Amino acid sequence: MTNTLLRNCHALVPGERGEPTLARNQDIVVRGNRITAIRPTSQAPEPDLDIIEAHQQLAVPGLINTHSHVPMVLFRGLAEDVPIERWFNEFIWPLESNLSEEAVYWGMQLGLIEMIEGGVTTVADHYFFMDQAARAVQDAGTRAHLGWAVFSSRGHQVLDETADFAQRWNGGADGRITTCMAPHAPYTCDDGFLRASVEHAKRLGLGIHIHAAEDMNQTRASLERRNMTPIQVLEDTGVLSVPTIIAHGCGLLPEDIERLSRYRDHVGIAHAPKTYLKLAMGLTPIPALRRAGIPVGLATDGAVSNNTLDILESLRLMALLQKHDASNPEVLPIPEALDIATRGSAAVLGMGDRLGQLAPGFLADIILVDTRGAHWQPPHNLAAGLVYSARASDVLTVMVDGRVIMRDRRLLTLDKARVLAEVARHMEHLARRVPEARIQVYEP
Amino acid sequence: MTNTLLRNCHALVPGERGEPTLARNQDIVVRGNRITAIRPTSQAPEPDLDIIEAHQQLAVPGLINTHSHVPMVLFRGLAEDVPIERWFNEFIWPLESNLSEEAVYWGMQLGLIEMIEGGVTTVADHYFFMDQAARAVQDAGTRAHLGWAVFSSRGHQVLDETADFAQRWNGGADGRITTCMAPHAPYTCDDGFLRASVEHAKRLGLGIHIHAAEDMNQTRASLERRNMTPIQVLEDTGVLSVPTIIAHGCGLLPEDIERLSRYRDHVGIAHAPKTYLKLAMGLTPIPALRRAGIPVGLATDGAVSNNTLDILESLRLMALLQKHDASNPEVLPIPEALDIATRGSAAVLGMGDRLGQLAPGFLADIILVDTRGAHWQPPHNLAAGLVYSARASDVLTVMVDGRVIMRDRRLLTLDKARVLAEVARHMEHLARRVPEARIQVYEP
Repeated sequence: MTNTLLRNCHALVPGERGEPTLARNQDIVVRGNRITAIRPTSQAPEPDLDIIEAHQQLAVPGLINTHSHVPMVLFRGLAEDVPIERWFNEFIWPLESNLSEEAVYWGMQLGLIEMIEGGVTTVADHYFFMDQAARAVQDAGTRAHLGWAVFSSRGHQVLDETADFAQRWNGGADGRITTCMAPHAPYTCDDGFLRASVEHAKRLGLGIHIHAAEDMNQTRASLERRNMTPIQVLEDTGVLSVPTIIAHGCGLLPEDIERLSRYRDHVGIAHAPKTYLKLAMGLTPIPALRRAGIPVGLATDGAVSNNTLDILESLRLMALLQKHDASNPEVLPIPEALDIATRGSAAVLGMGDRLGQLAPGFLADIILVDTRGAHWQPPHNLAAGLVYSARASDVLTVMVDGRVIMRDRRLLTLDKARVLAEVARHMEHLARRVPEARIQVYEP
Repeated sequence: MTNTLLRNCHALVPGERGEPTLARNQDIVVRGNRITAIRPTSQAPEPDLDIIEAHQQLAVPGLINTHSHVPMVLFRGLAEDVPIERWFNEFIWPLESNLSEEAVYWGMQLGLIEMIEGGVTTVADHYFFMDQAARAVQDAGTRAHLGWAVFSSRGHQVLDETADFAQRWNGGADGRITTCMAPHAPYTCDDGFLRASVEHAKRLGLGIHIHAAEDMNQTRASLERRNMTPIQVLEDTGVLSVPTIIAHGCGLLPEDIERLSRYRDHVGIAHAPKTYLKLAMGLTPIPALRRAGIPVGLATDGAVSNNTLDILESLRLMALLQKHDASNPEVLPIPEALDIATRGSAAVLGMGDRLGQLAPGFLADIILVDTRGAHWQPPHNLAAGLVYSARASDVLTVMVDGRVIMRDRRLLTLDKARVLAEVARHMEHLARRVPEARIQVYEP
């Protein structure tokens, strides 16, 4: 294991109350897979450290994508300008009937390349053929929290299979992979199925990753059908009793937030604003969730709604949109936006004790962002730059678990040319759309 | 003058009704400063053409920024998370008292570098010390429509001075510079001042570039104070009788749109969505404006509200936000978004007969956008890629008026290192903030 010094960077470090704060001209020491020191750059470095010069670069905790369906990059651009019902029934679920183990493996690699190039070091992924996703993460050297998505229409035996996956891969890739159960949503999983998912999660000591209250229409439909909100269903079926990631919560009612606040130690909300805009789903009520102490993290969702896997873009959209919807430019100021992007996202994954901060003892997931671009200059305010100017292409260097996996934008673990060629080979087959072949029906 | 062939690119060309449409594998021939042919790539090229290989690159009409204050990049990041009144009175107008001719020259160059690197070939700029802005445009090789911003608090003689500027530079830089009168806004310019601006414009055969109905508060304030909307004031003072660019129109009432539709041959709206989100100004009612036949174009506004000069980002935000605000994902579909970004913006500048289309006879302002990035792959839908995946950093090559000014991301006209050094030299002085020194007061 190499030990590394990131020399003379600016760094987003914990302030007095842990909030991310800009410190200029710092050295960051990494030993093994942990950060061991952050200090002003004047000291002479220890001779055993590999030095990465990082002058005018901004060190940021590796970005965390708290909810995605990464291999959906395979379908990027195939479902545009359509309402959510048609999006599911005429596009996504028919398209997904074309998936194969092999396609998911290459799709996951393509998505991981896009994320590494954009500074995303950890993803909570919720998809199919997840052994292949895990293999790709192992190859890429990134961190991931993986759940195999299932619908109750497939019967309870799929839970046994996906629990086997979760058990097989939890702690895999030298501890970089953690797993969970991933029932799709309360509107596609009946109560018995949700309860059985919880049983599996408890038996394995794992959590759950699920869609719920995605928009207000779903909440209304649930109230009409059974007089319970989707969040009540999660509570009633025991889901909220285990660590849970909830995507997307644009349909949360005030009483849902009150209910969620009782589980805030282990339940968080994944916020994927670009999807909400494209599908006109409304927005997650972030200020209310934050006031209730419920963790909120950033996400991209899949690339068929997003259409990218760009967490810097999610960060910018989150801050801009909350101001817009509140008609108040003081809502979600820069320090809070950065707090959500770092500590918030780590907390949503239940990893707040080891991810999301550049501090001694934390895992060495660090990205270096170039601040020399014209769009950052002059550098009056680097924190504002990170929220409002930074582009994925500004990420120069990416370290995960103490290992550099991209250096000066050169990928060190994955073979991009090969991945693009393999994806291109599957492209025509994947784009076929036979509505009768869809894997599920959307009728919340 | 070189003649150039952009070989084997994909291109956004006029469809049957002129709407931008994707054509794969095209050759674009440029002779002098005009496009002379666009044709499938199979033909053997004429021997006198310089060839730029553009395989897997997307040729797009040079992007047009219909409203900016480019040298404000000097203040980037200095006014964050504040309401519009404080933004003007405590930040912008005090900061602008620090400006000098020299600072504007270097600030304009910095902003032009950012725009060239992001594919923006034309900007309608509205600022101070505009001889310096014009010099920078001349150096950069870009196209610009320049107006010297004035307030009536400075007295009518400033109109004579800025009219002199407009006369001096109209047709300058080999015809790449056009000019206009630029009274700031109805709330900072009294009626007599607006009328005098119109007189100057008519005398010189020029138009006007002005802020109006920026948000609904301004419209309400105008109605309360004088029982006229800002758009009525523009009509009443004769502004709408000359070619006019109106920024930003988030405070347009239905009757304003009806009124504007009578002038739609020569009046258009500049839409700068990132500013509206950051300052919580609401949104320009784009569908209603388009139904009324009024040109709408894309803009960035200045970098203290934006914080970038990135028209691809404005394009993406425009499409996303209109869907969000209408709660309808079918609003502003990709073809319409691209139409606004190209023909719409050209029409707002009154240049729809020569800019905004890749077609024989049009000026050769062309950018080549790389589609090989992971975030574009696989290339099922390049039009969706341009709206929802493209980043400024994907722009590889920029041609303006037939001349290549950036090639494979290497700037060919401006000295970036020098510009960054000069801006850095002014940085501390520019950031000083003495509220008493402000150049104007905001009380709409």
